[in-house]
Amino acid sequence: MSPKKKPSLRAFSVPGFRASSVRCGIKKAARKKDLALILSDVPARVAGVFTRNRVKAAPVLLDKERVLKGRSRGVVVTAGNANACTGGKGYRDAEATAAFVEEALGLARGEILVCSTGVIGVPLPVDKVRFGVPALVEALDYGGFKGAAEAITTTDAFPKSAVARAKIGGKTVTIGGIAKGAGMVCPDMATMLAFFVTDANITTAALKKALRQACDLSFNSIMVDNDTSTNDTVLVFANALSGCKEIKPRGAAFDAFSELLGRVALELAHLIVRDGEGATRFVEIVVSGARSEKEARRAARTIAGSFLVKTALFGGDPNWGRILAALGRSGVRIKESSVDVSLNGVPVVAEGLDTGAEKQAARAMDKKEVTIAVDLNMGGASYRFWTTDLTYAYVRINSMYRT
Amino acid sequence: MSPKKKPSLRAFSVPGFRASSVRCGIKKAARKKDLALILSDVPARVAGVFTRNRVKAAPVLLDKERVLKGRSRGVVVTAGNANACTGGKGYRDAEATAAFVEEALGLARGEILVCSTGVIGVPLPVDKVRFGVPALVEALDYGGFKGAAEAITTTDAFPKSAVARAKIGGKTVTIGGIAKGAGMVCPDMATMLAFFVTDANITTAALKKALRQACDLSFNSIMVDNDTSTNDTVLVFANALSGCKEIKPRGAAFDAFSELLGRVALELAHLIVRDGEGATRFVEIVVSGARSEKEARRAARTIAGSFLVKTALFGGDPNWGRILAALGRSGVRIKESSVDVSLNGVPVVAEGLDTGAEKQAARAMDKKEVTIAVDLNMGGASYRFWTTDLTYAYVRINSMYRT
Repeated sequence: MSPKKKPSLRAFSVPGFRASSVRCGIKKAARKKDLALILSDVPARVAGVFTRNRVKAAPVLLDKERVLKGRSRGVVVTAGNANACTGGKGYRDAEATAAFVEEALGLARGEILVCSTGVIGVPLPVDKVRFGVPALVEALDYGGFKGAAEAITTTDAFPKSAVARAKIGGKTVTIGGIAKGAGMVCPDMATMLAFFVTDANITTAALKKALRQACDLSFNSIMVDNDTSTNDTVLVFANALSGCKEIKPRGAAFDAFSELLGRVALELAHLIVRDGEGATRFVEIVVSGARSEKEARRAARTIAGSFLVKTALFGGDPNWGRILAALGRSGVRIKESSVDVSLNGVPVVAEGLDTGAEKQAARAMDKKEVTIAVDLNMGGASYRFWTTDLTYAYVRINSMYRT
Repeated sequence: MSPKKKPSLRAFSVPGFRASSVRCGIKKAARKKDLALILSDVPARVAGVFTRNRVKAAPVLLDKERVLKGRSRGVVVTAGNANACTGGKGYRDAEATAAFVEEALGLARGEILVCSTGVIGVPLPVDKVRFGVPALVEALDYGGFKGAAEAITTTDAFPKSAVARAKIGGKTVTIGGIAKGAGMVCPDMATMLAFFVTDANITTAALKKALRQACDLSFNSIMVDNDTSTNDTVLVFANALSGCKEIKPRGAAFDAFSELLGRVALELAHLIVRDGEGATRFVEIVVSGARSEKEARRAARTIAGSFLVKTALFGGDPNWGRILAALGRSGVRIKESSVDVSLNGVPVVAEGLDTGAEKQAARAMDKKEVTIAVDLNMGGASYRFWTTDLTYAYVRINSMYRT
């Protein structure tokens, strides 16, 4: 297990968006920032995608209501406490967190969203948050996203950001994003959060549609473990300052925006996989030849979630039997005698049978990046999914007693 | 991680059933037996339950056809080679394995079933099997089940057997069983197999119904990892030699037989969990207060399959947040504010909120056996499920390169 290579954090700015970060004392470690704010200078269109877990953290419940208006000024994030499984008090604490920021900025109630990540079941220390907010507002800066990306991390080994630009409707549109996440859920100190800011001029309906598509092919196509956080949230704010013609839910401009958002989202999603708890390998699973995209996704997801495939990947073992067994229990219609599998380009299964190339495959797999390609030869649909291996370090990180 | 305590193997005999075991050279380790046979002196009623994995090993395909007749004389088992993902040749090899035994015993084609467990994707060494069969038939003995239980093991740390007797219809009926399994699947060297023999006089329909019920509450209610083997098979043979009145699919005699079979199956299932790959704890998950048994089972199974719950169990961490997060993503209707959770009797969540008893729970969990009790308080249905923790040893066992 070599130490994790830390990708360098990309600084970016997007016209009309400021960000800031301070330490208010939620995280136990001294000197760790734990409060972040993203603010649009003008009211922005907003869209959100939230955890499908039925146990939803208080800020998720609050944000789900607030995004319905389609407009927001920004989001405040607490890191170190998830404000989940905290009942009615938790909901009021989330409202209070937003209100501190709204009051400090002279905004109306409901204009600020809230996200939290960290320990479950412990009341949010609202007094610490109240204490931190004046400095947080004071620190707002157009170059503040780098600091915000750092402040929202918990078990992350490195902060994550991405940015992309494109000409849309004759104007340059920028989408910047920051994210945190290292396990799909870790009620101690993890969750997946991602925030995008863009100067695109886009309707709320179009923004929602683009966000949903971008999430499906990025954050919903990765897996570190098989768990889903109570706090997962993705938000996008669009303030129209690029002056581009308003983007509607269909047409060339929408497609261009959607592609751009998808690219930034995928970059952040891959950074989360690379930061997977205890991971030593970045694994791409490509299922092709499926009867439908849904079946291709299901097959890929089942392979990605298999304890046995993941431990074999850790061991550098081209154990295709485990891949076939996972496929077989995925619920997807397959014909065993039609399945081809290759590992980093080396065919190990052809028409359901061993090719005898395991030694060659073992050599090809001896890399930090492994691609498992499965061709079902049943149809024309395909899907890509990304995951990690399952390692001693994963067990160590997640079995250590918290206190 | 203390060494696994090996339960002692119970010897048993059931009137009219003989068993035997020899080494024919399939397993690499010298002196390990790898061929077993169970034979009824007279034609027996038979029922089987097979893996639901769409990738099915050749012997599974063969047996699924053969049990349709409702009668069989017994089963021959190869250990060390799964004869899975071996195509048409694999099927012919399974037929040949049965034929060697049928010929040696002067039986008609189709009277013997075949099971295999071991490496996937490697042709069965049929010449070795042919060579071993004469000695195997020669060794048949009414006291041979202990040896057979040993011969069918692969990654198992210990062989598994169970036996129970009851008066049914005025006669003493015996059910004996042997099983193997340590991971739910491990295409290298694992799978779950169980064989029951009984002198009950019972119709095929009743036998089928009783086996299905017994499996649902035993082998289908345990999980070591989240994988399902290509070879899983449970068979029951009933030779009527107890002379009890024929048991029909309903009534007091059926209930008594079904209860007896369920008891033996549950004992074997628990032995498989205790032998779980790398396991240091035997974990019972009881979900009560569900709206339906199906929902209770789904909730219990999701908790049992969570990487995070399993690593917390390894660490002795009363991390109830992970249990609630697993519940929340299980797809089961829950009301967060109604959920109660206790760990080895210590309430850690009451009405969805922390009870503040984590330290006490940590002490109570510091045992080889842990019970997670979840009350959804939504209805009257409940379900029990058994699993293990997820440990360094699991990762080691499953990541070691096979060759």
